[in-house]
Amino acid sequence: MTGIRALLFDVFGTLVDWRTSVAREAEAVLAPLGHALDWPAFADDWRARYQPAMEAVRCGLEPYVALDELHRRNLDAVLASRGIKLDEARCRHLNLAWHRLDAWPDVGDGLAALRAPFLLAPCSNGNIALMVALARRNGWHWDAILGAEPARAYKPQPLVYLHAVAALGLTPAETLMVAAHAADLAAAGALGLRTAFLARAAEYGRPNPADQPDFPVDFHVDSLPALAAQLRAGG
Amino acid sequence: MTGIRALLFDVFGTLVDWRTSVAREAEAVLAPLGHALDWPAFADDWRARYQPAMEAVRCGLEPYVALDELHRRNLDAVLASRGIKLDEARCRHLNLAWHRLDAWPDVGDGLAALRAPFLLAPCSNGNIALMVALARRNGWHWDAILGAEPARAYKPQPLVYLHAVAALGLTPAETLMVAAHAADLAAAGALGLRTAFLARAAEYGRPNPADQPDFPVDFHVDSLPALAAQLRAGG
Repeated sequence: MTGIRALLFDVFGTLVDWRTSVAREAEAVLAPLGHALDWPAFADDWRARYQPAMEAVRCGLEPYVALDELHRRNLDAVLASRGIKLDEARCRHLNLAWHRLDAWPDVGDGLAALRAPFLLAPCSNGNIALMVALARRNGWHWDAILGAEPARAYKPQPLVYLHAVAALGLTPAETLMVAAHAADLAAAGALGLRTAFLARAAEYGRPNPADQPDFPVDFHVDSLPALAAQLRAGG
Repeated sequence: MTGIRALLFDVFGTLVDWRTSVAREAEAVLAPLGHALDWPAFADDWRARYQPAMEAVRCGLEPYVALDELHRRNLDAVLASRGIKLDEARCRHLNLAWHRLDAWPDVGDGLAALRAPFLLAPCSNGNIALMVALARRNGWHWDAILGAEPARAYKPQPLVYLHAVAALGLTPAETLMVAAHAADLAAAGALGLRTAFLARAAEYGRPNPADQPDFPVDFHVDSLPALAAQLRAGG
């Protein structure tokens, strides 16, 4: 028996294919206006500004601000860097591309299989409204929305993981963090959470060796149903 | 069209029959130890200490502490007042009686009918783990767990309602507060939320006129399916 009672999930990259979805949303808004861009590169550029934007909050330069707002600042910069002017309504709609991300194909069945034995919650840097929208779009049933906004901090700050664990009334050892990124698992594991690496080779459209953990993890899988099977087998 | 996009729910009394459930749980723990009590009165006594316990947090005498902890302090006092000594394991189990409350019979169907058109979340003074347990026990599907713990304050403090509205990315006017208690609706309505009074005549086993709103509410129903029907009809 693993003693695990709840699973916490990273979302961007781990559960959803942000790159394909954001590229599609950008094309849907900008192509009709006559812009012909490398749409995956547009998504990559927007995403590349994600970690630096959170860093200002992490290091205390500014108080917690929701990811929707950081995404908007970054979108404005990405558009400006390409000389694209967009009216406010289209900017708002495009910014919410992150609310319209599609899950990797295994996620629906995987979460459904994991729901009976475990409490399930996202522990993402996405804000609550964003997580709610993704759950509705992809048909997920979370027990609670945990992560950055309830903790008012950004992963990998320890508070985010510890807040999620405490909110469920559990201990770190009873909680399994599932993520496609080594840094997320390193932070969670250092606090005593159990760790599952869920490889997503297609996240960036190319391999990203930095996401591979170079430290021991409790589970190493390439799909959620595979994780469910390993947990059923007791680890 | 009402413009309502999300429903926020009070839980104790509005969705669950705390009195019958707590009486049952107290009897299950204490009767085998030879205690013969008026079990509904035990539940009433425990519940009567609920508002005063939160008041210390509301007025700033102590920082936010989860309802599970306030319930425990109150349980210790209720047991002491009756001269009952209980070991720690039984105290912990009995304290979690509030995690094992049963819904009023109309709630399951009502929430299911409301889920397609609206975002649904509890906005309760119960903490997240408590809300998660009640949802699992009663088969509810919330979009998020909002309320006291995410806001770190207790209703009727304005922050609790405003935090829930903001977490969903909505405005107060897009949000309907559903409650069986006038004070809850008065606080929500003063902030611009829409209000639905859901009468629960059996909550205390006797009428409680103070719960009846003496001010206008947007909806006045005696079951959740009735509220769903009124909302379908556009108010």
